[in-house]
Amino acid sequence: MKYWEDFAVGEVIELGSCPITEAEVLAFARKYDPQPFHTDPEAARRSIFGGLIASGWHTCALLMRLSVDADPLEEEAATGSPDLDSCRWLKPVRPGDVLTGRTEVLETWPSRSKPIGFIRRRNELINQHREVVVSVVGITMYQRRPAAAA
Amino acid sequence: MKYWEDFAVGEVIELGSCPITEAEVLAFARKYDPQPFHTDPEAARRSIFGGLIASGWHTCALLMRLSVDADPLEEEAATGSPDLDSCRWLKPVRPGDVLTGRTEVLETWPSRSKPIGFIRRRNELINQHREVVVSVVGITMYQRRPAAAA
Repeated sequence: MKYWEDFAVGEVIELGSCPITEAEVLAFARKYDPQPFHTDPEAARRSIFGGLIASGWHTCALLMRLSVDADPLEEEAATGSPDLDSCRWLKPVRPGDVLTGRTEVLETWPSRSKPIGFIRRRNELINQHREVVVSVVGITMYQRRPAAAA
Repeated sequence: MKYWEDFAVGEVIELGSCPITEAEVLAFARKYDPQPFHTDPEAARRSIFGGLIASGWHTCALLMRLSVDADPLEEEAATGSPDLDSCRWLKPVRPGDVLTGRTEVLETWPSRSKPIGFIRRRNELINQHREVVVSVVGITMYQRRPAAAA
């Protein structure tokens, strides 16, 4: 397992890549974010976006999935997230894009009351043109190495 | 249409309610956030959460859906979101919960370059015990009333 103690400030972790298809953009948006520029290709063409774009929540969900899949040893010690500090949807994500995840450890501190530690990290999603499309700064909780927590 | 000019600082808008089922919690998490406390009822029972909880991204997606459905006249003028300032997952959301949305307008300002305006709003999801479970502060863009923008 990768425990809280095993993260270093400044560490950068590559999270792998995934494509996003029009069918997925439409399915997510019809269920959770049915605005015309996410659900209707024709209406989207007439919108300020000039074409269909993915729901911002969909892009965050894909970044989460990349993050979970990236390192099973890290995931085993992860115990959720209390907060995000910020989320920036910097560029539209469009069907056919290929998205790559990257995370950077910004800060680490232990819990005073529980055998866990906190990590502030910046998670980014980058498209095939090397543009950062989503940047999320948030806190993730990890279990502490048993000897250290005791 | 409810244009940017039609929002007032301090305005509170009720967004309606929706239930969340175990099947939905599992389906979302298996696709986007496959951590055991979201995808495996038995593993979740042994976790610090003591039972299955919804992915935080799932709770945000449900809040988005309530927000889109709440007012078609408002939705018609909405043109997406550039950022969130913060997102706090204050309490776990569990299968069987009934979630109610509420939004408060915190600040409004016009774009200097486009016929749109910005609204900073706090969106909250409240459970059947009247506990705020998710609180998101973010910016939404709306079209301006045509005469005012000209």
